[in-house]
Amino acid sequence: MPASETNARPPAPPSDRMADAIRFLALDAIERAGDGHPGAPLGCAEIATALFTRHLKCNPADPEWPDRDRFVLSNGHGSMLLYAALHLAGYEGLTIEEIRRFRELGSHCHGHPEIAAHLGIEATTGPLGQGIANAVGMAVAEAKLAAEFGRDLVDHHSYALVGDGCLMEGIAHEVISLAGHLRLGKLIFLWDDNRITDDGGTDLSISEDVRARFRAADWQVLDADGHDVEAVSDAIARAKQDPRPSLIACATVIGRGLPRLEGQRGAHGGRVFAADLAQARAARGWDHPAFTVPDDVLRAWRAGAGGRNRAAYADWTERLAARDPEQRAAFTRRSQARLPENWQDALRPAKRRFAEAGEARPTIEVSAEILADLTQALPELFSGAPDLEGPTRLKQALAAFTAQDRQGRYLHYGIREHAMGAMMNGIAAHRGLVPVGATYLVFSDYMRPALRMASLMGLPVITVYSHDSIGIGRNGPTHQPVEFLASLRAIPNMLVLRPADAVETVECWEMALANRHGPTSLILSRQPLPALRRMGPEENRSARGAYVLAEAEGGAQAVTLVGTGSEVALALGARDLLQAEGIPTAVVSMPSWEAFARQDEAYRRRTIPRDTVRVAVEAAIRQGWDHWIGEEGGFVGMTGFGASGPAEALFAHFGITAEAVAEAARARLPAA
Amino acid sequence: MPASETNARPPAPPSDRMADAIRFLALDAIERAGDGHPGAPLGCAEIATALFTRHLKCNPADPEWPDRDRFVLSNGHGSMLLYAALHLAGYEGLTIEEIRRFRELGSHCHGHPEIAAHLGIEATTGPLGQGIANAVGMAVAEAKLAAEFGRDLVDHHSYALVGDGCLMEGIAHEVISLAGHLRLGKLIFLWDDNRITDDGGTDLSISEDVRARFRAADWQVLDADGHDVEAVSDAIARAKQDPRPSLIACATVIGRGLPRLEGQRGAHGGRVFAADLAQARAARGWDHPAFTVPDDVLRAWRAGAGGRNRAAYADWTERLAARDPEQRAAFTRRSQARLPENWQDALRPAKRRFAEAGEARPTIEVSAEILADLTQALPELFSGAPDLEGPTRLKQALAAFTAQDRQGRYLHYGIREHAMGAMMNGIAAHRGLVPVGATYLVFSDYMRPALRMASLMGLPVITVYSHDSIGIGRNGPTHQPVEFLASLRAIPNMLVLRPADAVETVECWEMALANRHGPTSLILSRQPLPALRRMGPEENRSARGAYVLAEAEGGAQAVTLVGTGSEVALALGARDLLQAEGIPTAVVSMPSWEAFARQDEAYRRRTIPRDTVRVAVEAAIRQGWDHWIGEEGGFVGMTGFGASGPAEALFAHFGITAEAVAEAARARLPAA
Repeated sequence: MPASETNARPPAPPSDRMADAIRFLALDAIERAGDGHPGAPLGCAEIATALFTRHLKCNPADPEWPDRDRFVLSNGHGSMLLYAALHLAGYEGLTIEEIRRFRELGSHCHGHPEIAAHLGIEATTGPLGQGIANAVGMAVAEAKLAAEFGRDLVDHHSYALVGDGCLMEGIAHEVISLAGHLRLGKLIFLWDDNRITDDGGTDLSISEDVRARFRAADWQVLDADGHDVEAVSDAIARAKQDPRPSLIACATVIGRGLPRLEGQRGAHGGRVFAADLAQARAARGWDHPAFTVPDDVLRAWRAGAGGRNRAAYADWTERLAARDPEQRAAFTRRSQARLPENWQDALRPAKRRFAEAGEARPTIEVSAEILADLTQALPELFSGAPDLEGPTRLKQALAAFTAQDRQGRYLHYGIREHAMGAMMNGIAAHRGLVPVGATYLVFSDYMRPALRMASLMGLPVITVYSHDSIGIGRNGPTHQPVEFLASLRAIPNMLVLRPADAVETVECWEMALANRHGPTSLILSRQPLPALRRMGPEENRSARGAYVLAEAEGGAQAVTLVGTGSEVALALGARDLLQAEGIPTAVVSMPSWEAFARQDEAYRRRTIPRDTVRVAVEAAIRQGWDHWIGEEGGFVGMTGFGASGPAEALFAHFGITAEAVAEAARARLPAA
Repeated sequence: MPASETNARPPAPPSDRMADAIRFLALDAIERAGDGHPGAPLGCAEIATALFTRHLKCNPADPEWPDRDRFVLSNGHGSMLLYAALHLAGYEGLTIEEIRRFRELGSHCHGHPEIAAHLGIEATTGPLGQGIANAVGMAVAEAKLAAEFGRDLVDHHSYALVGDGCLMEGIAHEVISLAGHLRLGKLIFLWDDNRITDDGGTDLSISEDVRARFRAADWQVLDADGHDVEAVSDAIARAKQDPRPSLIACATVIGRGLPRLEGQRGAHGGRVFAADLAQARAARGWDHPAFTVPDDVLRAWRAGAGGRNRAAYADWTERLAARDPEQRAAFTRRSQARLPENWQDALRPAKRRFAEAGEARPTIEVSAEILADLTQALPELFSGAPDLEGPTRLKQALAAFTAQDRQGRYLHYGIREHAMGAMMNGIAAHRGLVPVGATYLVFSDYMRPALRMASLMGLPVITVYSHDSIGIGRNGPTHQPVEFLASLRAIPNMLVLRPADAVETVECWEMALANRHGPTSLILSRQPLPALRRMGPEENRSARGAYVLAEAEGGAQAVTLVGTGSEVALALGARDLLQAEGIPTAVVSMPSWEAFARQDEAYRRRTIPRDTVRVAVEAAIRQGWDHWIGEEGGFVGMTGFGASGPAEALFAHFGITAEAVAEAARARLPAA
């Protein structure tokens, strides 16, 4: 197909039949599964048809084409819309057989979409608001990568289909505001404006002027009849031409085409029966059997979605091939989310600095130093913080990524933690950049839904948390994490790291970057921590999760003290007390439960021997520690919230001291 | 003082000296503490003066006057503003000695304000956005109680002082949108519009038109010079006259009066030194010693804040006294957040229904039935859900609380979980209503920052969670909680309840209502659970946290199986298998870890004996279970995220079956 025809409209069949192909695949699958959400696939069939067959830059034959447009179904409950569109577009993995098995265990057609770029599914969605924030992150990544590699390699749009629920969630406003501020002109939201939520009419819970709200944040706002493929297509064309991000309000009827439910509240998630299908088929004049798409319709879809982009894809491939080999390799490597070979070399300067044990330092400060080295060596690192540039020390000399300067490598997220979390997911899912965000540990709760999604999607997102305990002192219990180590460790596939000093901080950074299939939480102190180790030539000891930092002396090991982060120094102090009393005591530093759990049992038993008295110390709650020290083990930590006062006073007040650790051990030793 | 003078302005001294009294108390305290946040107390001194001395309806001699205006310092880092104003207003607990001890351990003047209505502190604030949402909840409570008890008893305003950070947080938009929708005309936000955040100018991260955004949500927007007491006071007067909620944008200079820092980024949390104080004193002509307020200024403050309201207070007291005794008693009781005597009687109908074990039912459905009874009996119950009226079944026959009908007892929060959580905190802190919210368990993450605040404030907020495990089936891992029991149990002071059947659901509701000093999470199933118990005349067995549901038979107890919620039935199934093999096996139902932890050790040892093989089963992660079953104990549950498929297929796929529980026990029995 010549390039001039790239945007030519497909010939017959008429667009309403192309939309009906989505409609009936969705209905057949939902009826067969026995549940599902018909409202959105039916209500948005024309929107998806307009987007996929007229605009979306994609190549079903090479689904992971780095310069493809990104499409996120933010209203993930409408998953059958996406599966049907991808099947019609020609994504091979989404066969009709998969669609038949919608919502069965093992099918790619899950209840809600689950990220699989090779199938055209760009993000796992369902919890409302996450998907639009992912799309904003993708648009940031696109803008940054375009500035870095040039518009001839990176020039695509990020689309999100968004429901009323997505827009009501707080995270929506965070990203709407930030996207407008950043002037992400290649970001387009398609709003399924159906005036219905699960409870009934939207007027039950909202009367705000949504368009005015977007305009207040400097978006272009367009209106279109959501059941008119031409109208939606024209609006998308206009959206692409504006330097601002665009909202296209598509007026739709929920469940359109399903006579019993259309326009009704029940259409959102209501059950669909065989009789409904018969009615719908009659109403729309669709006389094809279940799961059957007429040839002309399928051909038109394939031509529209795949064929339309063939020339553009070929041209792009040529342009990439024409690049000098180093640039091409760098672009390809980053598009595949691979770190450079020997990336560990970037940690050498820091390791050199810590060859000799130095002065006491806040680990957040050490971490910032390490990140500065890494940022210089790894062009893909892209940092940011929600208005905590100072305390998290992340920005350093980095230029900001702004509306005017897309070269910047630091994003001022504003006081929008949730946006940061979910945008980082979008940045990581887009590929090409490795997002690093920083905030206080207590504010991880604000981004927790996004952290969960990062874990579920297996995205390499790194979050650096400062202010990790009562050690922050006078700001008081609102700002003192006590339950956060437990709650982050609870998230499956989340790597939680809490280094004890500068050397462990380097080691933990190495672990964080090496963790390519899930997020990492790097948990750091505001207060200075003494240097406990010097950097030897040995292996990364933290990578084992826990290791013996100080051996027991003077006899068979009687006591094992286990600590993390700032409390490892207390464990060492307690060891001094016990050793002085002739009690052979070892200290284990345990920067990561998850890494330790992956070691073989022999190593685990050797490191924390069960036949010794075991005492753990961590300025946090006990939850989960019994797994490592047994229910009879001693624990020195917190049992409730903190308090406002100087840090030293708080450690004493809550009894988190070397003496308390020693006493917990003594109390468990058999009487001499 | 005659009533006509109630709103009369105080005589000399001039208002700028009254504001300077705040300024210098704050500066002296912050300098003495060695840290603090001078920016807001200095920047908002005039705003607080206008509010406290001209408008706020309060009575420092009776701080908990139910009809007082509520004032929330949402930008809680500016705590010294509040302490200074309350001291000047005459709140006895906030002595000058307390202010001197700002940020010391044990002082009432914590780093961030901590709720203490008897001191005039209406909410714990600090994590941004929470305070404004609390204020919106307070305004809802006011409107509802006014409809119930009449405007002669309930007629007050809810104010929040709000910074840029509060407005950037997503929760802000949720409550702005909802407050406009509900037309909460007695809600007034005072915005400290200083154009500075911690990172620098607000233009680093926001360019949205904040005023337009509020107008889009149907708020009145007013502007005032934030350093002109008259101007702010006039704006407040206008705000009070509008039927819409009002935003007063107060143009301020951060750190105003502190020459070195004023208008600068560093003013937000910068250190203040003795030399700064000398400069500030010279600049403002304030020649009084540290912590000293001149008599005329103090008199004016006391007259403005306390004296001004004396007549109104006396009149109100008379009106209350004139009410019929029953109404008076009801109003007083509810204002003190006491449940009616014999409130447990309200559970009798439900208990009667469960006298005989009945059919299998979803516990969310049973819970809704119970709540319907409770709502009829307890007028203070006030329910709501974020667009999940159907699945959570909470609304029943309740009328909605709307802009038009303030009698309603059900709030459509919209798809705004975070708003719901934080508004419920405000409703509970206001007193007079007992808030009950319902959503899916996975969405608790969206409201988690508010749940933490409820726990920290010790507020009796009840959240009902449905869809509590992989038992929801085909909606897939985004909607299947696996880590949420652990993460909710991690929050100190949170009571987590997971009943196993209808009878336990009644018992858990009793525990939830009885829990007056902290929040409760009631965790319920979407799928039907078999009836395991009949309702006997015995004590509330769930209240012990864990209890023996089925004794071991045929010999000394060899195995103890512990389950919660839907998995208790699996434990019973496993017991059948083991007993059939001649292995004496007991089953313990454990609806609440927290309640069990409060039992004496003898009861705990007796219920889950350590000398038996212990196996726990819960369709969630193991974290924390070792505390109850030991590190050698068996655990049948989840190790990662769920999957999309039918519920039965998922339980089989993840190996959560009676057979697996039995096998975990067998594997741990000594060889025969």
